[in-house]
Amino acid sequence: MDKILRIDVGAEGGPKVTEVPAGEYAGLGGRALTSMIVSKEVPPLCHPLGADNKLVFAPGLLSGTTAAMSGRLSVGCKSPLTGGIKESNAGGQAAQVLARLGYAAIVLEGKPKDDTLYKIIINKDGISIKPDNSLKMLGNYDVVDKMKAEFGDKITCISIGQAGEMKLGAASIACTDMELRPTRHAGRGGVGAVMGSKGVKVIVLDDSGMKMRSAKDPEAFKTASKVWVDGLKKHPVTGEGLPAYGTNVLTNVLNEAGGYPTRNFKVGRFDTCTKISGETQAALEIERKGTATHGCHRGCIIQCSGTYNDKNGQYLTKQPEYETVWAHGGNCGIDDLDSIALLDRLDDDYGLDTIEMGATVGVAMEAGLIPFGDAEAAINLVKEVGKGTHLGRILGSGAGLTGKAFGVERVPVVKNQALPAYDPRAVMGIGVTYATSPMGADHTAGYAVATNILKVGGFVDPLSPEGQIDLSRNLQIATAAVDSTGMCLFVAFAVLDQPETFQALIDMINAFYGLKLTADDVAALGKSVLKNEREFNVKAGFTSAQDRLPDFFQKEVLAPHGVTFTVKNEDLDTVFNW
Amino acid sequence: MDKILRIDVGAEGGPKVTEVPAGEYAGLGGRALTSMIVSKEVPPLCHPLGADNKLVFAPGLLSGTTAAMSGRLSVGCKSPLTGGIKESNAGGQAAQVLARLGYAAIVLEGKPKDDTLYKIIINKDGISIKPDNSLKMLGNYDVVDKMKAEFGDKITCISIGQAGEMKLGAASIACTDMELRPTRHAGRGGVGAVMGSKGVKVIVLDDSGMKMRSAKDPEAFKTASKVWVDGLKKHPVTGEGLPAYGTNVLTNVLNEAGGYPTRNFKVGRFDTCTKISGETQAALEIERKGTATHGCHRGCIIQCSGTYNDKNGQYLTKQPEYETVWAHGGNCGIDDLDSIALLDRLDDDYGLDTIEMGATVGVAMEAGLIPFGDAEAAINLVKEVGKGTHLGRILGSGAGLTGKAFGVERVPVVKNQALPAYDPRAVMGIGVTYATSPMGADHTAGYAVATNILKVGGFVDPLSPEGQIDLSRNLQIATAAVDSTGMCLFVAFAVLDQPETFQALIDMINAFYGLKLTADDVAALGKSVLKNEREFNVKAGFTSAQDRLPDFFQKEVLAPHGVTFTVKNEDLDTVFNW
Repeated sequence: MDKILRIDVGAEGGPKVTEVPAGEYAGLGGRALTSMIVSKEVPPLCHPLGADNKLVFAPGLLSGTTAAMSGRLSVGCKSPLTGGIKESNAGGQAAQVLARLGYAAIVLEGKPKDDTLYKIIINKDGISIKPDNSLKMLGNYDVVDKMKAEFGDKITCISIGQAGEMKLGAASIACTDMELRPTRHAGRGGVGAVMGSKGVKVIVLDDSGMKMRSAKDPEAFKTASKVWVDGLKKHPVTGEGLPAYGTNVLTNVLNEAGGYPTRNFKVGRFDTCTKISGETQAALEIERKGTATHGCHRGCIIQCSGTYNDKNGQYLTKQPEYETVWAHGGNCGIDDLDSIALLDRLDDDYGLDTIEMGATVGVAMEAGLIPFGDAEAAINLVKEVGKGTHLGRILGSGAGLTGKAFGVERVPVVKNQALPAYDPRAVMGIGVTYATSPMGADHTAGYAVATNILKVGGFVDPLSPEGQIDLSRNLQIATAAVDSTGMCLFVAFAVLDQPETFQALIDMINAFYGLKLTADDVAALGKSVLKNEREFNVKAGFTSAQDRLPDFFQKEVLAPHGVTFTVKNEDLDTVFNW
Repeated sequence: MDKILRIDVGAEGGPKVTEVPAGEYAGLGGRALTSMIVSKEVPPLCHPLGADNKLVFAPGLLSGTTAAMSGRLSVGCKSPLTGGIKESNAGGQAAQVLARLGYAAIVLEGKPKDDTLYKIIINKDGISIKPDNSLKMLGNYDVVDKMKAEFGDKITCISIGQAGEMKLGAASIACTDMELRPTRHAGRGGVGAVMGSKGVKVIVLDDSGMKMRSAKDPEAFKTASKVWVDGLKKHPVTGEGLPAYGTNVLTNVLNEAGGYPTRNFKVGRFDTCTKISGETQAALEIERKGTATHGCHRGCIIQCSGTYNDKNGQYLTKQPEYETVWAHGGNCGIDDLDSIALLDRLDDDYGLDTIEMGATVGVAMEAGLIPFGDAEAAINLVKEVGKGTHLGRILGSGAGLTGKAFGVERVPVVKNQALPAYDPRAVMGIGVTYATSPMGADHTAGYAVATNILKVGGFVDPLSPEGQIDLSRNLQIATAAVDSTGMCLFVAFAVLDQPETFQALIDMINAFYGLKLTADDVAALGKSVLKNEREFNVKAGFTSAQDRLPDFFQKEVLAPHGVTFTVKNEDLDTVFNW
């Protein structure tokens, strides 16, 4: 993992490959690496779809090792959705495989000379890039099927669907899971549009014949790994809750807390939420001979996912995540799991961020295009994107643009990126993260829900502005570091509560690389990542005015708690003072 | 003109009228007044379509007097297009009539409780506000016809078409001319969408029975007025060029200068531009028994307008302006005057900014929706807005949003507002104005074309970065002052070249108000207006990063001169250092 693969898609005569040593970027992984390359090499004022933007894929520091949970892939660029820097990350097999193929990063650069669509194949024998216009306007499922037919079933795919080809702001990049299904997405920020602008439909990875990455100190690594696995298994969230019900275990929890944004953030509770809860979903999955406990990549032991079969017992999609179930469910007043699962499947196939699309459908409902609660109409709306209609182009561009096109005032976005599944008025810590993260509204950037609601890592009252700044700050720092390791963010539950599990993570990195990092070094890494990202955004034109929630969160009172978002603006401006 | 009319459209039981003395705003007019009210009363981070935004209509200091050319109405708000402060101004009768009715400003405030559409009638007897849903989704021409039928032909209308009701970013506000045609638009920045968000379709003004405003020193006013008129009549631009051919006299001039943006800013010359030049247009208008010399309001002596009849000699539209002929013409590769005039008529009827719409059609052509040069297809695109289709909503939201929806990189906007009819690479002074004006790209904000190309007010080489900052700065200051007087900006040609004409303008203000202003005071007024506007934008989240042209102007070389925009970024940041 000491090489960087640079592909200039704008070279004369077609894409040109250069393999270079990691050089100045050596020792960085995941988000630390993508954000460093973007901030050093991409002009902040460039057009996100132009020659100057770069799309960086980077596995984490521990990806491709035997370390459990190390399968996250970071995807970085200037975002067409937010106009700022973006790191969007995904599970699935890609990070492990790419790391084993020896790459710290793949960087797509330049601008294609024409509209030829390419596939990139990387295996132990090297890299080949081939035009393949037969892939045009295919969904991710069809793309993967074609790649499987051509290259066998040992491959891993990174691909875009129709949305990415259309360069839409909600376009995601799909990574295949262990069953070679394109179900794991770098969803946020329109990274799929940047891949589309580079003329690359799919990257096919095959690590057959490649060895597992080996640690500098194998014994110490093995010891630390065991402590790590034990820690994850013994924590109630990572050892029990997530395996049993997946992330959707949160539906009942957030609803009970009055922080479940319902019908485009109008109220904090959804009457019929039990119909779409994780408990209901898991029971249904098992009843239909799917699975309720399943990992998305080799080495996953939390197994938060599952398999969602349709009424006939046929595979429909992976177990939809909590945020997806919320976005297409409660946020739209929809309480039918089959409809939500179909929407998840459509999003995955077209290559769309499920959070952005659910929020967008909510805004379309607010605009009166279709009624809240009408699942069939919601499905038809999302299908417009796949068809490439004009309405599809509006919706596929995300909630912000949809709000503008339909003259809607209540549009839940920060930096033009849709708010996820936690109402910031009733979970104020996450509101601070939404407002201030360099990524735009993003729950994963500093998951204060853990401490506000789940009482992991202590407790900070979700309904009071007190303590939320410190909470979000510390979580944003920790997250930036975790996102650089390749670790699934869900490890954070155990890491926050169990000092020995946190230490095991540091020990694994130290043993693997022959380093002597301390907890302070990890925090310093997180801070330096955030600093790079913030600086990029400032150069791109962001000020504290963009570190704000839409004003309706300060004006409209949320039932049942009767709260507004009361963290002060001047306090929001202190999040990055450390 | 010492009262302000405030209408709270969100009051219980329907819109509520309050008439208040001008108070702290006394002595301000036009842009100085709209920008002061907006910057004092509108929260910079509010949603432009929400309750907190205000829409301010203000005649200028000399509107409603006998002073020639004093008929400009300023319309101010937070712009839904740019997200910053906006002053958009229009000719027609409204400013004169509103001033004679005694109003320094009308302010629409609040947010309607439902979607009832209102008409506001103001005459010597007072103000009445009536719901009238029969006006829904009518074009401006039909609205005016209905008002004429109801209130007679002595009225003046300020109205919105379908685009304003749909709250689209390119929506304008129409003012009727002397023939009661809705042909004079506050076009830029989506002010029509704000009027739509206030639920007001039309404001009907009738100054029957009201007196001309009288000066404090009538004799001095009369004397200064004569010098003023003489000055305008003797200058070659205001006395000859504009009356004979209208603003479209510029087509051949800019084409010759290589600064005529052709086919979405690809080259600086349009081969067949003589087919749509002012000379050709004037000859055609006369041949069809229209007029080539005509004023838009009482007291206009420049008479830059005309009447454009169709092939059958029937009225089609007013004489399209240079910027309109360019936007729908050369910018789209279209060289057919009848098609351009029809597009002008459609824009006026739907209530759309002709510059924004032409630029948008250019971007749609760049995206491949229709071919460059296809006039019939362009007409059909604009008709989509009138029909309210999804494509119409995209296009009616302006060039920036259209570029996003169709994944286009080459989108000529600054602060999301489309660039007008002068290529900034070949007319660098106007490029500085486009980049830095608080309004977004706007030629009228500091018309450096005058000095770069027409050699009015001296000469600064348009192809060199030297001297452009000073030029744009001085013109932006002067323009902010002129926009506060109610004077048509075309007076600037005479004012810049003839010191005695400038002095006559000051003398008129002094005589009218009993003041002793000097030229320095006028400059100070202009500076204070710009300062207010810049401060609003900073609070709304703008930085120097937004004071930039799209990067393709620095990278793509423009034929025939082989130039890029070479004014340095650090120099752009000095425009407002005075």
